[in-house]
Amino acid sequence: MTDEPWVPVPAGSGFGIENLPYGVFARPGELPRVGVAVGEAVLDLAGLAAAGLLDDRRWFASGSLNGFMAAGRTAWLAARARITQLLTDPAHRSQVEPHLIPLPQVELLRPIEVADFVDFYSSIHHAANVGQMFRPHANPLAPNWRRMPVAYHGRAGTVYVSGTPIFRPWGQRREEHELEPTHGPSRRLDFEAEVGFVAGVPSAPGHPLPPAAFRDHVFGFLLVNDWSARDIQMWESRPLGPFLGKSFATSISPWVVPVDALEAARVTPPAQDPPVLPYLRHDEPWGLDITLEVELNGHVIARPPFASMYWTPPQQLAHATVNGAPLRTGDLFASGTVSGAEPTERGCLLELTWNGTEDLVLPDGTTRTFLEDGDTLTIRAHAPTATGARLTLGEVTGTIHPSPAAPAPAMAGGRRPITGGHP
Amino acid sequence: MTDEPWVPVPAGSGFGIENLPYGVFARPGELPRVGVAVGEAVLDLAGLAAAGLLDDRRWFASGSLNGFMAAGRTAWLAARARITQLLTDPAHRSQVEPHLIPLPQVELLRPIEVADFVDFYSSIHHAANVGQMFRPHANPLAPNWRRMPVAYHGRAGTVYVSGTPIFRPWGQRREEHELEPTHGPSRRLDFEAEVGFVAGVPSAPGHPLPPAAFRDHVFGFLLVNDWSARDIQMWESRPLGPFLGKSFATSISPWVVPVDALEAARVTPPAQDPPVLPYLRHDEPWGLDITLEVELNGHVIARPPFASMYWTPPQQLAHATVNGAPLRTGDLFASGTVSGAEPTERGCLLELTWNGTEDLVLPDGTTRTFLEDGDTLTIRAHAPTATGARLTLGEVTGTIHPSPAAPAPAMAGGRRPITGGHP
Repeated sequence: MTDEPWVPVPAGSGFGIENLPYGVFARPGELPRVGVAVGEAVLDLAGLAAAGLLDDRRWFASGSLNGFMAAGRTAWLAARARITQLLTDPAHRSQVEPHLIPLPQVELLRPIEVADFVDFYSSIHHAANVGQMFRPHANPLAPNWRRMPVAYHGRAGTVYVSGTPIFRPWGQRREEHELEPTHGPSRRLDFEAEVGFVAGVPSAPGHPLPPAAFRDHVFGFLLVNDWSARDIQMWESRPLGPFLGKSFATSISPWVVPVDALEAARVTPPAQDPPVLPYLRHDEPWGLDITLEVELNGHVIARPPFASMYWTPPQQLAHATVNGAPLRTGDLFASGTVSGAEPTERGCLLELTWNGTEDLVLPDGTTRTFLEDGDTLTIRAHAPTATGARLTLGEVTGTIHPSPAAPAPAMAGGRRPITGGHP
Repeated sequence: MTDEPWVPVPAGSGFGIENLPYGVFARPGELPRVGVAVGEAVLDLAGLAAAGLLDDRRWFASGSLNGFMAAGRTAWLAARARITQLLTDPAHRSQVEPHLIPLPQVELLRPIEVADFVDFYSSIHHAANVGQMFRPHANPLAPNWRRMPVAYHGRAGTVYVSGTPIFRPWGQRREEHELEPTHGPSRRLDFEAEVGFVAGVPSAPGHPLPPAAFRDHVFGFLLVNDWSARDIQMWESRPLGPFLGKSFATSISPWVVPVDALEAARVTPPAQDPPVLPYLRHDEPWGLDITLEVELNGHVIARPPFASMYWTPPQQLAHATVNGAPLRTGDLFASGTVSGAEPTERGCLLELTWNGTEDLVLPDGTTRTFLEDGDTLTIRAHAPTATGARLTLGEVTGTIHPSPAAPAPAMAGGRRPITGGHP
C-alpha cells in the first residue's frame, strides 16, 4: 500500500492511494455509477468493470453503493486491492486512464440508499454542555449516559447529499418567556458536526452483533451534518425525544471512506468509568483520530476532535443491535455532535454560542448566534494514514434557504407572533 | 356500492363489498402478488390484470403495494370501482371466479415496503395514564401535549407482518431499586394496540401538507402492534426518547383498508382545548369509529375505542410535514397506544396492570403483569359501513419467543443479576 500511484495526487489533496473512498457520480445526461476518488479525479468503476479490469456483479453500474456494500468484506478487500494495483502499476496506466474523470466534470450524488438512520449522543463534552445549559441544577449527564451510547431514530427519507439546499423549517415552538406556542420559521437553526458509519452486510433478527463484528458488517465512514432547529426541538421533545426539530434535513458527505482506510487512525479512546457491561466491551482500541473542521461562510469556527468521543463505533453498533433488531444494508449510524473539551472544539452553535447567549464573532466582523438565511456551513475532516500523510473524509456543505412554502392557514394566524418576537 | 356481491360473504366476515382491503399474498412456490380480501377469499389482482379485466401498470404483480400506492387517488378510486363492479355484476362471475383463492391457501406477506415509521402518542387517556404513573406529582400531560400530536421516529426495518414470531429483546435496564444497570432479557415486555395509516403519494421537500391534503396522499389504514420493552425503554429514554425498547419489532396487519372504505366511520373527534394552531385545523370531522379488540391467549382483555383519540390522522400528517419533511411512498404513521376512558379500554399492559402493580386475571385463572414467553397477543378491529354492516381491519397477531441468541460475552457477566432479580 506504500506504492506511489501514477495518478497525480496534489499535496494535501487527501484523496491519495491510502484513501480510495467510494461514491456515486453522474456526468450530464448519463446514468449514475459508482466511482472512487483519487487525486482530482473520480475513477469510474462501472467503466473499469465493463472493460474487464475489475470484478463486478452489477455493483458499480448503480445509483447507490448498496449492492457493493451488501457484498461483504471479502469483496470490499478484493476491490480495494485491485483498485490499488490498477492505480499504482504503470503497466495498467493506458487501460485505466480513460476511466479517470476530472471531479469538476461530474455531479456527486447521495452515495447510499439509507435504510434506517440512528443518531447517537456519544460526545461527553457535548452531552455535558447541553445538560449544563438546560438542567443547570442537576447532574449534566443523565444516569444512563455513561452506561450506554444513548441514541434515537432519525428520518431516513430526509438524508441528503452535500450541497442540497437546506430549507429553514417551520414548526411549533414556545420560548421560556412565552405563554403560548407559535407556528413559524425556526429562530434557532443549528448544525451538528458528526461522523457516521454505514452498514453493508445485514444481520438476522434476534441475533445481536458484538463489537468484534464491526469490520464484517460496516462498510465505511462519512461526514454527517444533523441540522437541528433548537426551538422546535426543545418544545416538542417531552417525553419522546427529538422529532421535527431534526427530521427536516440531514446532510452527508458524498464519499464513504472504507473502514480499512482508517486503520492507521485508530487510537485508544477515553477511559470509560464506570466499566461498561460485557456486551459493550472490546479489546481493540476503536477511537478514531479524525479531526473535523467546521466552516461558516468561509471562516473556520471549530475543530472538533473525533478521538475524544466517549463511545466508539463498535460499541454503538453492539448497542443498536443488542435487542435483536437486525441490520439492513444502508443503515446509517451517526455519532451525535462531536465536541472536544475546548471551547474551540464545539461542534454546534448551541454550544459555541451557549444557546444564543454569546455572539460568535466571525473574522469579517459579522456575528451569529444561530444560522441565518444565506449562510453556508461546511464540515471537512482528515485523519492520519500509515505513511504519515493525511486522508480526507471530504466535505459536507449546505446553504440555508427560506422555506419555499408554508400551509396557507398558517400565514394569517402563525406569522404575527414571529414578526413581533424575532430580533 | 350497495349492490350485493356474487362472492359468498359469511355474516360477520367483515370482508364485505364495502371493505375491499389490499394485501400481498403468495401461494406456495409462487411469486408474491397483490390481492384484495373478499369473504373468505383473496382476489388475485395480478391474475385479473393479466386476463385484461383490470387496469394495471405493473402495480399488482408485485411484492408490495408501494407501486399502486404511489399511483394516486384517481387510480385508487378507479381500481376500487372496477373491483366492486367485477364482484357484484353476475355477468363477470365466470371470468373472475378463477382468480378467487381461498384464504387458507395463501400466505399473507407484509403488504408495504416501509419507508419511514413515525409513531404518535395521540390518546389523551393513554398519555395521562402514563404521565400519572411516572410523574405522579406533576401534571400528567406535558405542556406540549394538547398543542401538537407528539411523536417520534421508530425503526422501519423491524416492521413485520402479523404472525411473525416476536423474540423477547435483550437489553440494558435498571429498575428503581437497583443501583446498577444489568443486561438481559426484558422483564416487562408489552404490546401497544394502535391504528396506523400509510402514505401513497409523495410530497416535495419544503412543502408542508395541510390536513385537507390527507385523502390525496394517504392510501389506507391498518392495525399496528408497537411491541414495547418497558424496562429497557424507561432506562434509555432520557433525554432522546424511546429507542431499543421499541426497535426490536413492530407488527402490522396484512390488510390495508382504503381511506374511502372508512368514510362511514368518520365521527366528530373529542373537542380540542385549547384551540389548535391554524396549521392543525380542519373542518371535516376526522375521528374514526374503529373499535379495537385485544386478545391475550384467546381471552379478550380490552376494547380500545379509536374514536376517543384526541389527535386525528389528518392532524398527524400535517404535523409530521410542517417542517418541510417530504412524504415518501410507504411512510407509516401509527397512532400510539389507543386507550379509552374506561379501564377495560386500555390498549397496553402498562396501563391494564398499572405498570405491573395489579395482576390482570384471565378467565382461565392465569394472571399476567407483562407478556411471558409463549403468549399470543392478537388485535382485531372493526368499523361501521354505510349500510350498517361492519368492516374489519383484519388482525395483527404475534407470539413471544425467547431470544434465539445473545452476544457471547454477556452470558457470564450479564446473566447473574437476572436470575437473582427476576421473580
